[in-house]
Amino acid sequence: MTTGRLEAFSDGVIAIIITITILIIDVPNGNDWPDLLAVLPLVICYAISFIVVGANWVNHHHLLQAAGSVNGKILWTNLLYLLVLSFLPVMTGWVGKSDFSMIPVRVYVLVNLGAALSYQLLEYMVIHADDCKILKTAAEDRRKERWTLAVDLLALIASFIPGVHYACCPLLVAAVAPWIIPDLRMKRVVELRNEKEQNRMD
Amino acid sequence: MTTGRLEAFSDGVIAIIITITILIIDVPNGNDWPDLLAVLPLVICYAISFIVVGANWVNHHHLLQAAGSVNGKILWTNLLYLLVLSFLPVMTGWVGKSDFSMIPVRVYVLVNLGAALSYQLLEYMVIHADDCKILKTAAEDRRKERWTLAVDLLALIASFIPGVHYACCPLLVAAVAPWIIPDLRMKRVVELRNEKEQNRMD
Amino acid sequence: MTTGRLEAFSDGVIAIIITITILIIDVPNGNDWPDLLAVLPLVICYAISFIVVGANWVNHHHLLQAAGSVNGKILWTNLLYLLVLSFLPVMTGWVGKSDFSMIPVRVYVLVNLGAALSYQLLEYMVIHADDCKILKTAAEDRRKERWTLAVDLLALIASFIPGVHYACCPLLVAAVAPWIIPDLRMKRVVELRNEKEQNRMD
Amino acid sequence: MTTGRLEAFSDGVIAIIITITILIIDVPNGNDWPDLLAVLPLVICYAISFIVVGANWVNHHHLLQAAGSVNGKILWTNLLYLLVLSFLPVMTGWVGKSDFSMIPVRVYVLVNLGAALSYQLLEYMVIHADDCKILKTAAEDRRKERWTLAVDLLALIASFIPGVHYACCPLLVAAVAPWIIPDLRMKRVVELRNEKEQNRMD
Repeated sequence: MTTGRLEAFSDGVIAIIITITILIIDVPNGNDWPDLLAVLPLVICYAISFIVVGANWVNHHHLLQAAGSVNGKILWTNLLYLLVLSFLPVMTGWVGKSDFSMIPVRVYVLVNLGAALSYQLLEYMVIHADDCKILKTAAEDRRKERWTLAVDLLALIASFIPGVHYACCPLLVAAVAPWIIPDLRMKRVVELRNEKEQNRMD
Repeated sequence: MTTGRLEAFSDGVIAIIITITILIIDVPNGNDWPDLLAVLPLVICYAISFIVVGANWVNHHHLLQAAGSVNGKILWTNLLYLLVLSFLPVMTGWVGKSDFSMIPVRVYVLVNLGAALSYQLLEYMVIHADDCKILKTAAEDRRKERWTLAVDLLALIASFIPGVHYACCPLLVAAVAPWIIPDLRMKRVVELRNEKEQNRMD
Repeated sequence: MTTGRLEAFSDGVIAIIITITILIIDVPNGNDWPDLLAVLPLVICYAISFIVVGANWVNHHHLLQAAGSVNGKILWTNLLYLLVLSFLPVMTGWVGKSDFSMIPVRVYVLVNLGAALSYQLLEYMVIHADDCKILKTAAEDRRKERWTLAVDLLALIASFIPGVHYACCPLLVAAVAPWIIPDLRMKRVVELRNEKEQNRMD
Repeated sequence: MTTGRLEAFSDGVIAIIITITILIIDVPNGNDWPDLLAVLPLVICYAISFIVVGANWVNHHHLLQAAGSVNGKILWTNLLYLLVLSFLPVMTGWVGKSDFSMIPVRVYVLVNLGAALSYQLLEYMVIHADDCKILKTAAEDRRKERWTLAVDLLALIASFIPGVHYACCPLLVAAVAPWIIPDLRMKRVVELRNEKEQNRMD
């Protein structure tokens, strides 16, 4: 299996996850503004999940592009990552329908934390499967990874304090925000690899 | 990230949006003609959304193909555009189930207007990210963009006048109609770019 | 727009149509065999739609591959074809839930007939957009098209006769059966075009 | 039709099957831990189906990549395989909602067995359609196929013994476990074919 194939499949699954979440929002139960307001928590929660999955997609994409080869461990970890990510639609629905109650919010934070952890596990697997040292050097700067974990953990703590737990959703957006910007490290890996290959050909 | 990747992901999301809208139509609640008639508003509304999303897809596709490179701003604006577009299935359901009531129709018009605005913002981002002047010149003719905004605003006004608000849905189709025809400006950009590249190679 | 792009989008939409139809089948309402039997009409109807959409996909795919270029008319007709096809999931649900009642079956036959007609309209558009005469000669043998229309019309007549209307679903499968076998005419067009291009290069 | 096209379509359908299964999990009916616990059987069952479909995807992908050409029989068998696989989402819902009752579990095992059988039929079709002997030799080692069938049959027997039937789901995971590891035989076929083609070119 080439990385291209794994990419295509993962892209497909993530595109479907990001889009079916909208099915969680019920059609308003009446034809007036208050009926629309009633589904507003769902709409907000949907927008947050959309951003989280979008950021995850951008990263995951760069990571697989930088990967040199695919082995069994990467396949399994990737499947685990997609499995965790696929719980977001249902959790989005739970948080929205419960009007941001504490327990749904906490479980939602846990799913986000699980996605971050399994992503970083996948990153670890990709880095250690690679034969060249370019990826390892590029991945040494782990500031973004630490930021995400730190802010996700902060959101987890916030989810235990009544009232403060409303800050969880903005925190989850903050956790992934730096990832939306294309990951320059991975970009450099792809460029370096292309250069190397061209040198070998010359 | 190359534009090809962004295209593939956006294509996937738009294809899913266009298709899951059908899930909004309930199975008729009986086995006779009146039962089918009862879901007719939903069917009409579905067909309108299908055309709107289809036209959006054709444009978006041409725009990304004409884009030379992808930066963080384009990624964010593209995500915003897809987010707005993804509200169409639920809104289609609301308009259809409310039998074209005024408030659902108005919100539906607003989502369409939001899609048009975020698309034109994306167009602006792509044009200003591009290094060559071909795209800028090609995009100077903004008649289609002005038509869409004008007709969408007309639909918004119509949505405030009882009775006249039934004209909103035909207006929304009229707003996107010129877009279905492949955008010749963008096509020319791609051709010009290809020529240029070939000249450089010779 | 190249045909490749139109293909990819149409493939995406058809793959989603074929798969979301399964969502029409409700989870059985109990844990015993009779509960599974209660959803059996839905399962049968789902399998029929699966085959119909599958056959449509194979054809549509060959047709677009044989097409030399894409114009506005082809885009519109293709959108119409996908729109008609996308009503199959809901209609499948109606037929199944009504236990093959006459009116749902008749509407289902009409959607199938509509898909066949819009497909043949698309075929007409593609053939007349093409500049070379290869496609026109290849498409002269219209036996498969006539078979599909004839059997679909037979199914429409059957849907008006109580009792006989149960034959409609097998008839719809028979109508598309010859299409599952790859369309040799279109295949020859692609081969002929490739040969021609190679000759021009030599 | 090239194998690439069949691959892309099958990949799309499988990616959608794996993702829409999550829609089977209802949003918990309350905001407390017991409400989450109530959907736990669904979550477990979803995770199992996710792994089963994931393993099926990896295999199917390798098989089609190794295939030299596509004929009508392969198309039909592939459609049958996708049809069987597409029943997994609904069956997952039935098993989960019935709290692992005996009959839903037995039907779920039967669908898994059907997927294994139709996959092996597809494998047979691909091997016998191939003109070269590489694929035939590579496919002689049928240990994985026998393991899957044996464990699936064991699960079927277990589904008839009250109490023991809870072992069915772990057994189904065990049946597909060896497939997650990329199929080295098919990989070698692709490599051998590439070598051969290169020799012919030299």
